[in-house]
Amino acid sequence: MKRYVILCEGGFAEHDAKTATGVLRYAPDPVVAVIDSTRAGSTVRDHVPGLDLDVPVVASLDEAMTGEPDTLLIGIAPAGGKLPAPWRATILQAIERGLDVESGLHDFISDDAEFAGAAMRTGAELRDLRRPPAGLDVPSGANLTVDATTVSTVGTDCALGKMTVCLELDLEARRRGLASVFVPTGQTGIAIAGWGIAVDEVVSDYVAGATERLVVEGAERGGPGSLLWIEGQGSINHPLYSGVTLGLLHGAAPHVMLLVHEPGRTHLDMPDGPPVPPLPQLIEDYARIASYVRPARIVGVALKTNQLDEAAARAAAGQVTEETGLPASDPVRWGAGELLDVVLAESGR
Amino acid sequence: MKRYVILCEGGFAEHDAKTATGVLRYAPDPVVAVIDSTRAGSTVRDHVPGLDLDVPVVASLDEAMTGEPDTLLIGIAPAGGKLPAPWRATILQAIERGLDVESGLHDFISDDAEFAGAAMRTGAELRDLRRPPAGLDVPSGANLTVDATTVSTVGTDCALGKMTVCLELDLEARRRGLASVFVPTGQTGIAIAGWGIAVDEVVSDYVAGATERLVVEGAERGGPGSLLWIEGQGSINHPLYSGVTLGLLHGAAPHVMLLVHEPGRTHLDMPDGPPVPPLPQLIEDYARIASYVRPARIVGVALKTNQLDEAAARAAAGQVTEETGLPASDPVRWGAGELLDVVLAESGR
Repeated sequence: MKRYVILCEGGFAEHDAKTATGVLRYAPDPVVAVIDSTRAGSTVRDHVPGLDLDVPVVASLDEAMTGEPDTLLIGIAPAGGKLPAPWRATILQAIERGLDVESGLHDFISDDAEFAGAAMRTGAELRDLRRPPAGLDVPSGANLTVDATTVSTVGTDCALGKMTVCLELDLEARRRGLASVFVPTGQTGIAIAGWGIAVDEVVSDYVAGATERLVVEGAERGGPGSLLWIEGQGSINHPLYSGVTLGLLHGAAPHVMLLVHEPGRTHLDMPDGPPVPPLPQLIEDYARIASYVRPARIVGVALKTNQLDEAAARAAAGQVTEETGLPASDPVRWGAGELLDVVLAESGR
Repeated sequence: MKRYVILCEGGFAEHDAKTATGVLRYAPDPVVAVIDSTRAGSTVRDHVPGLDLDVPVVASLDEAMTGEPDTLLIGIAPAGGKLPAPWRATILQAIERGLDVESGLHDFISDDAEFAGAAMRTGAELRDLRRPPAGLDVPSGANLTVDATTVSTVGTDCALGKMTVCLELDLEARRRGLASVFVPTGQTGIAIAGWGIAVDEVVSDYVAGATERLVVEGAERGGPGSLLWIEGQGSINHPLYSGVTLGLLHGAAPHVMLLVHEPGRTHLDMPDGPPVPPLPQLIEDYARIASYVRPARIVGVALKTNQLDEAAARAAAGQVTEETGLPASDPVRWGAGELLDVVLAESGR
């Protein structure tokens, strides 16, 4: 178990601090404090709806040290990708105090000469969650033969909670005593689960092969017959990320798919984003294209309704079911049981 | 203009030496000799059907030097990816004599300490054709606004001649006086054209962005209103490479697509390859998925018929047209005019 302090300077709120809130919500490791001087004196529950934790938000690493953290996690991606100067100072302080540092940034902290030099002196470990492992290759076909039921979450856009859907369904499956493993494919998932590969950082020739490797490792972790929840990335209709999406989908070779969608999102969340296609069209296209590797269909729609009140969320779910003929539910809001049931039914379990 | 000597030791034959035969057939730069001691004393025309060149095949670099080459091109990928010892010796000899070296291998020659040291001494340049350029990013949307007609070749499998189809159509368009540019996306295309990006070597997040950059550069090279022939990679139904295929397709954002197919290839060319899907299904799926970025359809089928005699090739083309309702032709065998006509008609030119 690690004891985290999470660096979120200037940005600790649900939307900006995806890695921070993901770890706070789902990681087994405790978080002793969040650093954000602009929100110092409050607690986590003041900022993140549904996250009822009294973890303190503090102004500096010094204040966080009373909780005896052993790992600093960078909980937010700086705009523009460059580390702001005050963050650098905090990271260096952490290294000087011997804390390990975990980062999901595109620019690797272990390649930073100043950080690496300091870590060498103090013995701190610098972990770049997005750094691809060595020895990747194209798939061998092992993805088609592992003894597991593979479930992929696929989306109508990116940033809709595909990871969250996997985590909720994995939790529910384990509550029911099923062998079940969340399979992380992005930096937040890796921070939460402590393993995985950021497939969007891999050489493009090896996206499917990296995913196959995760499926094989997931099956080893879960044991024979386990359920594997493969975190999706992007969407096949996304002009920027569709290549990652499809390589990941074919590498996962799912038996079953769940579509993740945010009701009311009419256009992709990007500048001049094109319209979100009609759900039935996407549902058909995912099945057509996944089935080139293994026949699979979408059996349910997982909704992100946190922007809606209860009545609006219920209405949205009803409308999606009417439009698609599929069960539709928000696993965070209403629990993951309904969607787990349809996955188990589809996989004959 | 470069003067090439091409290293093909032990493997100068059409199927193995794709880079060598591509450069011999299509590059503007002359080739003074091919090195393959197992075929020494013959000429290129003895080994590559349809390539009527009397370029000598020689046993060593020494013998090739009478042709005054200035660049050694590695014309074949060694099985297993490691450079055999005799090749290393020839590459070192070339560097010692001051020849530049071009390589499309996965392992970069410029990262090899022995080669780099020798090149430092002699001033030879080591060019890794697959090394991605710096500063890649996701697409900006420029792919949708360049003043050009973008044509993507897409396939039913990999290794069917998508590059060749682009090169033949580009040649035919330029013969007709049209502004036309071949846009290379793999190492052989880069060797032939002298520019491009090997998109399968790019970080997966940036495949579409790298392709957009190529489209923008192609339009600059061709001038306003030019035709751009985007070399395809893999296929959307390929379990190993579909991610690259789709990122490339969405980054190219084609106006028009051509399907490339080898009649008689019933299964993908890989161990335990799955069946090649029915052509109408693939034609529909390419249109459905391309159109998420820009509406486009497949307007013709380019055939690879070099394994068939004339009568069988004619019969195969007729059968493909019957099956798909589209014109079908082998541009190498029968000229690229028919397929160019359908592309021009589709793009309203």
